[in-house]
Amino acid sequence: MEKESSQFIADATTTQNMEGEADEESNPLNQPLLKRSRTLSSNSQAMVGAKVSYIESLDYEINENDLFKHDWRSRSKVQVLQYVFLKWTLALLVGLLTGLIATLINLAIENIAGYKLLFIVHLIEKKRFGNHFISVFYGIHLFHWGNLLLTMVAAVLCVCFAPTAAGPGIPEIKDYLNGVDTPNMFGATTLIVKIIGSIGAVSAGLDLGKEGPLVRIGSCIASLLGQGGPNNYRLKWHWLRYFNNDRDRCDLITCGASSGVCAAFRAPVGGVLFSLEEVATWWRSALLWRTFFSTAVVVVVLRAFIQICNSGECGLFGSGGLVMFDVRNVTIKYHVLDIVPVAVIGIIGGVLGSLYNYCLHKVLRLYNLINQKGRIHKLLLSLTVSLFTSACQYGLPFLVNCRPCDSSLSETECPTNGRSGNFKQFNCPDGYYNDLATLLLTTNDDAVRNIFSTNTPYEYQTSSLLIFFALYCILGLFTFGIAVPSGLFLPIILMGSGYGRLLGLAMGSYSNIDQGLFAVLGAASLMAGSMRMSVSLCVIFLELTNNLLLLPITMIVLLIAKTVGDSFNPSIYEIILHLKGLPFLDAHPEPWMRDLTVDDGVVPPLGIATEATEAHGIILRAHLLQALKKKWFLREKRRTEEWEVREKFNWVDLAEREGNIEVAVTSDEMDMYIDLHPLTNTTPYRVLESMSVAKAMVLFRQVGLRHLLIVPKYVAAGVSPVVGILTRQDLIPYNILTAFPHLARTTGGEKGN
Amino acid sequence: MEKESSQFIADATTTQNMEGEADEESNPLNQPLLKRSRTLSSNSQAMVGAKVSYIESLDYEINENDLFKHDWRSRSKVQVLQYVFLKWTLALLVGLLTGLIATLINLAIENIAGYKLLFIVHLIEKKRFGNHFISVFYGIHLFHWGNLLLTMVAAVLCVCFAPTAAGPGIPEIKDYLNGVDTPNMFGATTLIVKIIGSIGAVSAGLDLGKEGPLVRIGSCIASLLGQGGPNNYRLKWHWLRYFNNDRDRCDLITCGASSGVCAAFRAPVGGVLFSLEEVATWWRSALLWRTFFSTAVVVVVLRAFIQICNSGECGLFGSGGLVMFDVRNVTIKYHVLDIVPVAVIGIIGGVLGSLYNYCLHKVLRLYNLINQKGRIHKLLLSLTVSLFTSACQYGLPFLVNCRPCDSSLSETECPTNGRSGNFKQFNCPDGYYNDLATLLLTTNDDAVRNIFSTNTPYEYQTSSLLIFFALYCILGLFTFGIAVPSGLFLPIILMGSGYGRLLGLAMGSYSNIDQGLFAVLGAASLMAGSMRMSVSLCVIFLELTNNLLLLPITMIVLLIAKTVGDSFNPSIYEIILHLKGLPFLDAHPEPWMRDLTVDDGVVPPLGIATEATEAHGIILRAHLLQALKKKWFLREKRRTEEWEVREKFNWVDLAEREGNIEVAVTSDEMDMYIDLHPLTNTTPYRVLESMSVAKAMVLFRQVGLRHLLIVPKYVAAGVSPVVGILTRQDLIPYNILTAFPHLARTTGGEKGN
Repeated sequence: MEKESSQFIADATTTQNMEGEADEESNPLNQPLLKRSRTLSSNSQAMVGAKVSYIESLDYEINENDLFKHDWRSRSKVQVLQYVFLKWTLALLVGLLTGLIATLINLAIENIAGYKLLFIVHLIEKKRFGNHFISVFYGIHLFHWGNLLLTMVAAVLCVCFAPTAAGPGIPEIKDYLNGVDTPNMFGATTLIVKIIGSIGAVSAGLDLGKEGPLVRIGSCIASLLGQGGPNNYRLKWHWLRYFNNDRDRCDLITCGASSGVCAAFRAPVGGVLFSLEEVATWWRSALLWRTFFSTAVVVVVLRAFIQICNSGECGLFGSGGLVMFDVRNVTIKYHVLDIVPVAVIGIIGGVLGSLYNYCLHKVLRLYNLINQKGRIHKLLLSLTVSLFTSACQYGLPFLVNCRPCDSSLSETECPTNGRSGNFKQFNCPDGYYNDLATLLLTTNDDAVRNIFSTNTPYEYQTSSLLIFFALYCILGLFTFGIAVPSGLFLPIILMGSGYGRLLGLAMGSYSNIDQGLFAVLGAASLMAGSMRMSVSLCVIFLELTNNLLLLPITMIVLLIAKTVGDSFNPSIYEIILHLKGLPFLDAHPEPWMRDLTVDDGVVPPLGIATEATEAHGIILRAHLLQALKKKWFLREKRRTEEWEVREKFNWVDLAEREGNIEVAVTSDEMDMYIDLHPLTNTTPYRVLESMSVAKAMVLFRQVGLRHLLIVPKYVAAGVSPVVGILTRQDLIPYNILTAFPHLARTTGGEKGN
Repeated sequence: MEKESSQFIADATTTQNMEGEADEESNPLNQPLLKRSRTLSSNSQAMVGAKVSYIESLDYEINENDLFKHDWRSRSKVQVLQYVFLKWTLALLVGLLTGLIATLINLAIENIAGYKLLFIVHLIEKKRFGNHFISVFYGIHLFHWGNLLLTMVAAVLCVCFAPTAAGPGIPEIKDYLNGVDTPNMFGATTLIVKIIGSIGAVSAGLDLGKEGPLVRIGSCIASLLGQGGPNNYRLKWHWLRYFNNDRDRCDLITCGASSGVCAAFRAPVGGVLFSLEEVATWWRSALLWRTFFSTAVVVVVLRAFIQICNSGECGLFGSGGLVMFDVRNVTIKYHVLDIVPVAVIGIIGGVLGSLYNYCLHKVLRLYNLINQKGRIHKLLLSLTVSLFTSACQYGLPFLVNCRPCDSSLSETECPTNGRSGNFKQFNCPDGYYNDLATLLLTTNDDAVRNIFSTNTPYEYQTSSLLIFFALYCILGLFTFGIAVPSGLFLPIILMGSGYGRLLGLAMGSYSNIDQGLFAVLGAASLMAGSMRMSVSLCVIFLELTNNLLLLPITMIVLLIAKTVGDSFNPSIYEIILHLKGLPFLDAHPEPWMRDLTVDDGVVPPLGIATEATEAHGIILRAHLLQALKKKWFLREKRRTEEWEVREKFNWVDLAEREGNIEVAVTSDEMDMYIDLHPLTNTTPYRVLESMSVAKAMVLFRQVGLRHLLIVPKYVAAGVSPVVGILTRQDLIPYNILTAFPHLARTTGGEKGN
């Protein structure tokens, strides 16, 4: 697995180089300067949205230079209060806006998809009565064309305006919060494309969720709010300067991601835990609390809208409360022996989940090859998938037999012809229903609701469930990689619930557990088997289904599925991160990193002349650029005073992170001096050259560094005071193994977590 | 607040010194050697269980010495598998044993307290029929004596055998996981005393919960399992050597603490989150998962026992399912306007919570003065509180009027004479009930259940609720500090529910929210106002009450209460930590720490001669002792070979952390050499002397250090290569402020969280 994906990256890079498509963010200054071997840093480019970008690391280190120190002292109590107030206001706004946009998306999807489905139902009804064959034929065409059009909107937007908006976005957020600043991740364009694209793609009936996109939307909102608006039209509000640093921006984005999950699943605690378990790298108790505040706001907004919509003012949106798939009124009876089917679900979920990861990896590699051929190929791929999906959704229900309605159900309950409803009439005579149509010809949310339905042991026949499961396995693999905003949650839930319900049907009377609960457990197990989360998934399922008594068996299923899955391959997010070439720094050093010392891969920094005997500190490129831009030049070689510096710079300037700027330096100025001492971080973290890479990595990751100075063990005259500088790229296991291939052979031990 | 508690610590130390009561753990070698001013380290002693103990820090740093490096390489794949297997087995055992012991405690308490209450009910019944006055009089005496006896058992055990078992234990666990190794925290004696003492204290009807003790019990079980049994009777199982390090021990104790919370509240997710939010300092995703496994096991054990007990085989224990205070069947109707009463509850909860913290602090200082007078004083204090409690519980219900039963209730429902039941007859005629007796003459768990009861708007009269609230305010303040195992959760829940229900009564028809829910929200708000947790409390309440629709308003209440409380004083746990003098390292440096550099408070280590030009590394005291004990002496001055060292030491020896040992060194041996290089950690983390204390503290805390070397900025001949060593004590704000009093004046800004 490892080997294959690395090959892929090599392929992608080569293709890229052959095409010579220069990226507008490419940045020659950011080329690695300090490495002995080129190999170690050949991967400083990430594949985001099939476009290679140069990336920078985020800065968490306390930058101790004279200027910042002074500014810290001069920050008054009022300013601290402003900062705290703004921090909470932004958390409130993030929650509010995410809630509003989520409602908007829900409304749009339910209405578009709803009217589309009503139209189909209407057509089928006509057909059942045996007339108007030709109009039916045209109608079906119209249905397919409608779906194609919706997909087209989503795909065109993604392809042309925001390639980074395709896909789920959770891996990228995870990587950002790990400290990697990938460009164009959280822009206004991405936000708008995500919203419209998500509406289009989900309404088109594709096997996609709005969950992943909502997480990204939440993060985009947070990022935009924090910087005061889109890049070119920023609000120049004085107070916002406090948020012009990587730490506060990361905090806000964490709030945004949690709000997104909360809005997607209506699961406030689950949202917070999701961020904690899956997304965030550093976590503080204070952040937990602020994140929680954001999700609380989201829930209040959602609840308010649901109340408004319950009075029927939102078109087809309206049914359902805060809990999405309510199985609350089921009395759950199970005893100790039921642990056997539960364990079986877990094991199968783990196996299927890792198999899904494996296959999806292959499909994504294939898709990447197709997508690199150009925009038209991307578009065509999306449209093909859309066409296949709608053909299956409409065609397959004709294959199964109609089933008679249970006599205990009233006529309004079975069969139904409305948009939702658990017993779809479709092509059946009165008193009969088509169980496959119930699952396929509906929105994804309703499909989940229908397959989770409890106390309906005879509703579905085995053949229908088999078709459903097989179809969603295929769709789940082939839909994810297309160029529209897509989430992984819903496809996996659909697949998992299919196999869970099948298992429940097979168990029959051997188990006390309801078939609907089998479906719920199946969905949970597949998610754990593929995404490898535990606590957050458990809470999300708890909040989705509102039944606390399910908790113990859900926990067991999740634990088993995750354990089984982990023994085969990494989680789907890790696979995607690796596919995109994003340098994610893991929490645990690999065992073989203990055998490698930090000086093994670095040479002295170029910036230090050989006769240098002192390391004064390090200076950020952005600050150097500022010094050049502001022409901070001196006629004589002298140490500047604090007031001089403060006249020229303030910390708001220095917090800016600009790209390259053109500075015209006259020949006169070329002879002048520049005093960097006020801008120099005089106390960078430093390690001895004899320290193992494992130990250095613990420091690097725990403190959130960008640069780590390596100092020699014995200082003597003529010896450079700095042996080298470690960066994120030097600590990525893949990069080290590329430079030291012999280590790869000795690996294989487990990480000592 | 700050100043007062420091005075207290000074007092305590003085008293200690005057009495001259030497502590068996006191350790002259552990005296601070390296500080310029004595002030900075005058607090290396902690007050645990009113006995001053010398404490050590835990070791998280990767110790890179030759021996460990070799052993790491030689660790085979089988050994790694053994380690992983054992890790999970221990997590399973922790869950299993915690579940079993929690069930045992529950059974014992419900039966002892149940028969005691039945006896009282029987007496009252006799009295109601107007005869046997004298036997009734003796009976009441018997009741009081019974309670006194139970309290006596708990107090004597605590005072004589395990002083550290008194109190809740959560602050100590929090401190341990922060890296402070307080002796006698997790011993077998503590465990047994906690179990029996908790049963005694709760059965005696004291205003105490079993929740805090259960958390400590879980941690004790984990610690004992990890080290293979009690200190003197350790199982010498080969495999257990893997767990002989501070990191794995901390992980296990985290599992134990989570299991304890889970067993106390039957809240598996809440337990995990509690550990995460309140207890643990460092957290990894892998740990989240293992903790979750432990709590899942606890829930399975609890559920199995509840099923057995439901068939009536557990004496008086039996009613109730997995959910403790089930308000699931309440239809919750609330709209946006209800946010006003909800906000009011939150604000009052915050104010009351911080007021409680303030008062409890005062009471605990008073109690500490009493407790230091000797064991008899401790015992007498406990017995006085017990006597007062039982007098109030029995006497106060006579003060209120009997209320007529609602006609809609059947005769078996109202009035009741059994152990539990919502409408206690007590001294009332048939058809009437005593509402205060319903709340007071019952176990604490049943009292909570009764006051949380929903759809009973006319059950309680204002006067009864007022008496209840006032009584539990007094009891909550004066019970906590006595020398029995006690938890803070239940007293606060009782107080909070009292005020919440009162507020609900006052609101009357102005709000749609049920009075029972007002009680729930009141309890939540007071807990947030005092303990300052957010997410974990929310989940615990969710799991306690099993009603997801409560979530949004619970969240709002918790957020408001925590915010209000935080603006007055720190959380109750922080106050207790500070009172005990335990050196807890906060996550955020104080703002003024940026103005202080690390060399401000240290002088060169004594171990380094002035002519030294190289710092080879640091060596642990435990390893030095091992070298002396094993007589690792050389006749000539030479560097030893690796095989020599390995013959003498293995990493199992070096992982031992022994106290002082007596080593007899002959005069011959005194002339010999010792080669420390194989035992030296050659790559300790090091910082420049010009680094600010704030930045050094971030490193110290994030990486979990014990020692941090300070190196000079400019190395030259004659300059010592190490300026000093920073330890935990040097970074505790209180200690720094004692040494640099002028900083205290400039403080006051908020922490930049």
